[in-house]
Amino acid sequence: MRILGIDPGSGATGFGLVARVQGELCHVAHGVLRTPASASLPLRLAHLHRAVQEVVACHHPDVAVVEEVFVAASARSALVLGQARGAVLAALAGAGVTVQEYAPARIKQALTGSGRAGKQQIRALVQRLLALSALPGPDSADALAAAICHARSSRLELLGVVPRARRRRRAPGLRLAVRPAR
Amino acid sequence: MRILGIDPGSGATGFGLVARVQGELCHVAHGVLRTPASASLPLRLAHLHRAVQEVVACHHPDVAVVEEVFVAASARSALVLGQARGAVLAALAGAGVTVQEYAPARIKQALTGSGRAGKQQIRALVQRLLALSALPGPDSADALAAAICHARSSRLELLGVVPRARRRRRAPGLRLAVRPAR
Repeated sequence: MRILGIDPGSGATGFGLVARVQGELCHVAHGVLRTPASASLPLRLAHLHRAVQEVVACHHPDVAVVEEVFVAASARSALVLGQARGAVLAALAGAGVTVQEYAPARIKQALTGSGRAGKQQIRALVQRLLALSALPGPDSADALAAAICHARSSRLELLGVVPRARRRRRAPGLRLAVRPAR
Repeated sequence: MRILGIDPGSGATGFGLVARVQGELCHVAHGVLRTPASASLPLRLAHLHRAVQEVVACHHPDVAVVEEVFVAASARSALVLGQARGAVLAALAGAGVTVQEYAPARIKQALTGSGRAGKQQIRALVQRLLALSALPGPDSADALAAAICHARSSRLELLGVVPRARRRRRAPGLRLAVRPAR
């Protein structure tokens, strides 16, 4: 299974691809899709849409994973983020890739066991888990973290062990001691 | 010149095409692009992206016009609108169409002479200006209004009469008595 994590942004969109090979999680690729700052907004969005299509055409992911967005700092920043997100999600679904969304806390929990991990902690953990030679940049680290979260969540589901956060959402009030694998 | 107005929305995106033929403004087409409510967000955005591409392929606009967004009711609604906008703008620029943005007040002013016209007044004016047999729906009326605004603005520019709103932005503090054509 090849999992593409994507972290959409107006200037830089991180992406990271992981694969599960014989039960082992391995790194395939990661990087940042940058849009030309001097271009108009519609051209930057078209550029981003095309770049995501190229990543999909090159790496053939089985599923794409993005972070759910909860509260943005302001309506203006929500609009800017929304526009980038719209171009990215349209490109993914347009290329026939199923998109899965996870809450930020769920992604952090899947990596660290805590929903409150910091940016630096996530980057270091992603580097260690995927045995990367260098610390990934913040945008691609977030994208790889989302992909790892999906890999771990679907493995736990296959084993019949669903992480606490998801159980709680399905059956409110039910609290389980099951934790996601570290 | 063929001008495509677009009014992006998460559920319904209005579009309207006008053309200038021998100095006269005429209606070409208008309608609403609806996304299947039961589908996932990425699929709806991919559907919207494809539908905009089809409108462009069918009508070959020289320019597309969208309303600028200022303040949304909340960060949540700004995100939802932003996602639809991102898919629409990426489709337009990806198809090689130049996109022009106008402030909502500028569009109203170009149609009515006032920046404070109501929805019903805009619909009635669009119907009269384009000699439509029926009142256009609110989404396509907004799209047609944006297209008419561009047609009038570019005609005024050709005549050397630039509307007040634009002059003021270029040279703050300068107030002119020039008004857009009615």
